[in-house]
Amino acid sequence: MVEEPTYFVIEKIFRDRGLNVIGVPTDSQGMLVSELENLLLDGLKPSILYIIPAFQNPTGLCLSNDRRGQLISLANKFDFHILADEVYQLIHFDELPPKPFLAFDEGNRVISFGSFSKILAPGLRTGWIHAAPEVIKKFSDAALTFSGGGFNHYSAALIREVIDLGLLDTHVSVLREEYSVRSDAMHQALQLYFGNEIEYTRPSGGYYFWLTFPEGFDSDRLLTSAEKAGVSYRPGNAFSESGKFSRQIRLAYTLFEVEELKEGISRLHEAYSEYSIE
Amino acid sequence: MVEEPTYFVIEKIFRDRGLNVIGVPTDSQGMLVSELENLLLDGLKPSILYIIPAFQNPTGLCLSNDRRGQLISLANKFDFHILADEVYQLIHFDELPPKPFLAFDEGNRVISFGSFSKILAPGLRTGWIHAAPEVIKKFSDAALTFSGGGFNHYSAALIREVIDLGLLDTHVSVLREEYSVRSDAMHQALQLYFGNEIEYTRPSGGYYFWLTFPEGFDSDRLLTSAEKAGVSYRPGNAFSESGKFSRQIRLAYTLFEVEELKEGISRLHEAYSEYSIE
Repeated sequence: MVEEPTYFVIEKIFRDRGLNVIGVPTDSQGMLVSELENLLLDGLKPSILYIIPAFQNPTGLCLSNDRRGQLISLANKFDFHILADEVYQLIHFDELPPKPFLAFDEGNRVISFGSFSKILAPGLRTGWIHAAPEVIKKFSDAALTFSGGGFNHYSAALIREVIDLGLLDTHVSVLREEYSVRSDAMHQALQLYFGNEIEYTRPSGGYYFWLTFPEGFDSDRLLTSAEKAGVSYRPGNAFSESGKFSRQIRLAYTLFEVEELKEGISRLHEAYSEYSIE
Repeated sequence: MVEEPTYFVIEKIFRDRGLNVIGVPTDSQGMLVSELENLLLDGLKPSILYIIPAFQNPTGLCLSNDRRGQLISLANKFDFHILADEVYQLIHFDELPPKPFLAFDEGNRVISFGSFSKILAPGLRTGWIHAAPEVIKKFSDAALTFSGGGFNHYSAALIREVIDLGLLDTHVSVLREEYSVRSDAMHQALQLYFGNEIEYTRPSGGYYFWLTFPEGFDSDRLLTSAEKAGVSYRPGNAFSESGKFSRQIRLAYTLFEVEELKEGISRLHEAYSEYSIE
């Protein structure tokens, strides 16, 4: 089970592993637990639910506290595990997001993972698992872990030094500050160029704006003219095999400076104006 | 299908992945292809054969050229793939081992892998796959590869510099020379202390001596007194779930200096003398 929309590679990753993938609709508070419950009551027996509870990819939204508790109840009742992809948890702006998902779990339903990719450097390919001790033990006792003695010693050794020197805390603070500034800049530019033409919830952390265009809009089609104008994005249907998101696009503000973001939104609007005329 | 004996974690790794593991006996030229053929003719339908063709772990032996060809024929006839673990291929002494397994394959049966763990530094956790282009494509097109853009960017970038600067070639030459010297030292010490009490084939590359003790010997039992004497090894039955190797022990000569190796063999013989008296 995954959110609709969700991280754009996860459905293919699961299918590559022989899993069947089913989407559950979301709203501004994240996964619609009532919709999931209906599927379960109809006899669906998932082994895992994959979810991005904080600053979701692509929507930027957080799963509410209430729904976190409800999902754990369903996991207990219907016997499935929750894979919580919490890689954006630490990238919050002024307000803290809900606590990490494991805080809502009194058993061993939640297997949460974080990554230094999002808070230090993507190339390090190193992260962590946050779960009950008996769950952690399954990973640390696995033959693959034993064989290599670990998954990435060299990066892990580097990261340990960065943490011990206090540099990770400093770096995460810098990211929060800088991403907050960039997010504001993107918001201002979107207001300036698009105004009421689009709808979105302003992100309070994470990497993304998830824009909804008017009825009839085709985000795949705009991409061609956008790229001609020298700007790009991921169209909504990249994030779901359901095909429900042709009115949406995802923008990332983390990779560019404020002036570049302004220029990007200006070019996007230019492409959109041409698209609207066509 | 695996060799009996084989790399001591691989059986558990395969079982962790839900695979059933069956051993095939070996002799001084590696896997007994005739025994494998009998199993196949009896109706066994393996999906993969895992084999360490050069300087095998734990025996140190190489699979002969003839048997390499025969294995490919069987793989074609009975439709299975060969996972060739060739991590020791480059660690040869005076004579070259047979060519890499893929050289014997005119189709796409062989999936060979190498590792910088054995020729540069284990902590890098980076290796390569050597296979037909259509096989490589399956790995490079996998969702997991796409998601991360690669498996270990940081180590890969370091290794690339090491290769471009010509330092890997130099380092491998140093390892060959040094491991050859250490292997000789272990051989001399084994002759000095054990003489005819044990049997083994002198390795011509790789990391290991595989010693056979007299009838009735129990390599698990010797381990306790060996460790009391300050020396250790992996007992034969660590390398096979078949339980056939209680007369064998594996010694590694790569991790120690010549003087330490001599001292280690001396201590091992001391423990063996006590063991024999008990």
